[in-house]
Amino acid sequence: MNLKEYIANIPGFPKEPVIFRDVTPILENAEVFQYVTDKFSEFAKEIEADVIVGPEARGFIFGTPVSLACKIGFVPVRKPGKLPRKTVEVEYSLEYGTDKLCIHEDSIQPGQKVLIIDDLLATGGSANAAKQLVEKLGGIVVGAAFVVELDDLQGKKVLGDIKVCSLTHYEGE
Amino acid sequence: MNLKEYIANIPGFPKEPVIFRDVTPILENAEVFQYVTDKFSEFAKEIEADVIVGPEARGFIFGTPVSLACKIGFVPVRKPGKLPRKTVEVEYSLEYGTDKLCIHEDSIQPGQKVLIIDDLLATGGSANAAKQLVEKLGGIVVGAAFVVELDDLQGKKVLGDIKVCSLTHYEGE
Repeated sequence: MNLKEYIANIPGFPKEPVIFRDVTPILENAEVFQYVTDKFSEFAKEIEADVIVGPEARGFIFGTPVSLACKIGFVPVRKPGKLPRKTVEVEYSLEYGTDKLCIHEDSIQPGQKVLIIDDLLATGGSANAAKQLVEKLGGIVVGAAFVVELDDLQGKKVLGDIKVCSLTHYEGE
Repeated sequence: MNLKEYIANIPGFPKEPVIFRDVTPILENAEVFQYVTDKFSEFAKEIEADVIVGPEARGFIFGTPVSLACKIGFVPVRKPGKLPRKTVEVEYSLEYGTDKLCIHEDSIQPGQKVLIIDDLLATGGSANAAKQLVEKLGGIVVGAAFVVELDDLQGKKVLGDIKVCSLTHYEGE
């Protein structure tokens, strides 16, 4: 399957010179969405993940089906003020300024092997924030999986020595 | 299965006198998450849904697995500025002020039968906004499914003459 046929390229969104890689056409076609889920689930089994972590909001879309396919739990990583129980948080850099992500502090058990799933790997800021959150709770991030990797932005380097599964690759922004 | 054992009750979140019904423990247990998915999928088949619509962000969590189980598409409904292609939008009332929700204008075909899935039905504001968005595109909302329904807030009335499947019910806020 040529997955790129189901990724829309939107020049100038949210602003120039970005070309936004829009994964919503994948979701509208259950066969393609199942293909992505199968690929991620194979990867999850290969790295023997115990739990899936997905950052808000597109990480929820791709992470939850893998959690069910592999019969392992799903843990959401969210913006501040969204998770109602006690959380830990990390701050991370954006193009301008900083943002924060949070995780429920009882959601990962020490030693659990974690797969982070999101739609897109760009600079690696939010994926690395999710990794730090898992590590704060004593979990071990063994891999990260993305539908799209923007190779030029070198997000993979930021994630360090973990396995990365990206289903498509793009040059430039 | 007593699903309420997997819904945490958080008094005072996000503020008094609300008791927040937190569904994240469901996600951490794949067996329970699969049970919810199975129930929703049975309902989707019963009402012959052609497509699942899920509002940001918890609607993504519960909607996408049903889309895959039923082999039908998933369409996200999001806050303004998040969907990159051309959208239609509706404004809806919150406790204080208003908010907007958007849908890609090519995501629903006229005559398609839609099931809306979200974690919780309270006053019905966001579910009804999702319903209006679908109707603007010519789709027909045939049902709505929730993990939690807060009966006192009478959100079901707002949704009018569609089938509603709620897996648990609570009194009060």
